[in-house]
Amino acid sequence: MITLNDVRAAADRIAPYIRHTPTIAVEAVSQPITDARLSLKLESLQVTGSFKARGATNKLLSMPKEALSRGIVTASGGNHGLAVARASKLAGVLATVYVTESATAEKREKLKRWGANVEVVGQIWNETNVAALDFAEQTGAAYFHPFADPDVVAGQGTAGIELLEAVPDVDVVLVAIGGGGLISGMAVALKALKPSIRIVGIEPEGSPTLKACLDAGRLVHLDRVTSRVATMSCAETDQKVYETVRDNVDEIVVVSDEAMLEAARWLWFEMGIAADLSGAAAVAALRGKAIDIPSNQSVAAMVCGAGKDAL
Amino acid sequence: MITLNDVRAAADRIAPYIRHTPTIAVEAVSQPITDARLSLKLESLQVTGSFKARGATNKLLSMPKEALSRGIVTASGGNHGLAVARASKLAGVLATVYVTESATAEKREKLKRWGANVEVVGQIWNETNVAALDFAEQTGAAYFHPFADPDVVAGQGTAGIELLEAVPDVDVVLVAIGGGGLISGMAVALKALKPSIRIVGIEPEGSPTLKACLDAGRLVHLDRVTSRVATMSCAETDQKVYETVRDNVDEIVVVSDEAMLEAARWLWFEMGIAADLSGAAAVAALRGKAIDIPSNQSVAAMVCGAGKDAL
Repeated sequence: MITLNDVRAAADRIAPYIRHTPTIAVEAVSQPITDARLSLKLESLQVTGSFKARGATNKLLSMPKEALSRGIVTASGGNHGLAVARASKLAGVLATVYVTESATAEKREKLKRWGANVEVVGQIWNETNVAALDFAEQTGAAYFHPFADPDVVAGQGTAGIELLEAVPDVDVVLVAIGGGGLISGMAVALKALKPSIRIVGIEPEGSPTLKACLDAGRLVHLDRVTSRVATMSCAETDQKVYETVRDNVDEIVVVSDEAMLEAARWLWFEMGIAADLSGAAAVAALRGKAIDIPSNQSVAAMVCGAGKDAL
Repeated sequence: MITLNDVRAAADRIAPYIRHTPTIAVEAVSQPITDARLSLKLESLQVTGSFKARGATNKLLSMPKEALSRGIVTASGGNHGLAVARASKLAGVLATVYVTESATAEKREKLKRWGANVEVVGQIWNETNVAALDFAEQTGAAYFHPFADPDVVAGQGTAGIELLEAVPDVDVVLVAIGGGGLISGMAVALKALKPSIRIVGIEPEGSPTLKACLDAGRLVHLDRVTSRVATMSCAETDQKVYETVRDNVDEIVVVSDEAMLEAARWLWFEMGIAADLSGAAAVAALRGKAIDIPSNQSVAAMVCGAGKDAL
């Protein structure tokens, strides 16, 4: 799908428009969640509040300007929509963002503040996406897919390069999965730079999109999506994202919505970090002992988005 | 009062118990608040949610263990209380924290979660403090003053050493003032390390404790404290803190409570940072153009505490 070179090119392209987010050591906590050395990469401090700004900006800068003249449209659980709204501002065009009914009021309000036209359609992302694609066809707006797009995946992968620079000795990297764009991009970059790294994906119990694919050995459409975490709920990924995950990700574990909520509360109480539920997913996996990590190893978890769900 | 050597000794002493918090560059914002290069030091990510952990931990580690056997007591707008509660946990003794009536429900709840016995007395800190001093006398608990204590001030100053390491070219440093402990400690360290640094304090319009002293040229007791920001409301500071501020701080500006609330909203929307109102005070001063900073300079603002006041 993409290579390390694509991710490196994306990093150069988007550098003036996104933030090099901090990676912090988790120390001095009252209730530790792992015996290993733990770092958190705070994409919650990224512009628009999540890593999604990376992919949307890379997509924007990879397109001819003419293709953007009728605006941009997307379908999102919230975070990608915010990134698209901000990319549209950079380009000086209007963003239309279709969100799921489950997208939080917080994300919807923030979308409006970023100047987006917000449309609420569908219970899960795939339904919402049909409406966004219709809109693109009818209006000529440029459609930005949240994950099934090499430019978007390469953009998300830039977080992997930064993470390894910040924690060169990292052994295990934990990444939440919605459609699989972030983990695909990061895994390609990280495995190329340091093949020994173990990459673990985290999905909601109620939307194990990629885990179902890995278990079946082929692209799978989930019959039911029951997670209420809009940013991680997606009935089906893309063939190339699936293959990238199959070839580069070591394992996928699932966590409950409740475990993510408790993890977000932990992040707030212990660390002062206001994460959304997807942002807390990797921490939830550690807290729930879903992953076995030797105590002499270095583990890094992505805090992929900001939110006040647990505050 | 204290010297750079005291601050260095404090840094060594508290290192195993506190976090080296990140300093981030403010880039890619939709509504910039200064033409200068702006950095934020995120003490909101410090253990217990504010810089106060530095001072309380240094105080704890500077005391003979016997002096702590009957527990620890303090009077606080919230953040110092949390730091004392956590210090008490390190020592294995009980903390009793007297808070003002204006301390937010969030701070009170968090105090209980840190295991403190919480007592609500008085509208402003000085009244609350009388109750805490009575308690110390009656019970033999060790009293930890939030600012009028060289060990506490030296502890807070460690944030200054870290800040200068992170931003060696810094020209201007902005620090919120409650009683003056943080700015005293930081100013002593920063002026010793880099005398050209300009240090600006920020106080609430409704509690200009140190500004009143500087204007009068002596220690002043405010007749009225009208700010609702409990962590910054204090009718009178200490003679030595006043002298340290007089000798090391270049100027003090005031901001309204409303400006701090709006600044906290800006921090959340633009940066994904959940700050309390004192944590947003330095940003409020920049937003309100209360300080004139040449665009070719490097300015650093302390985000001194976490909170959800604006979320």
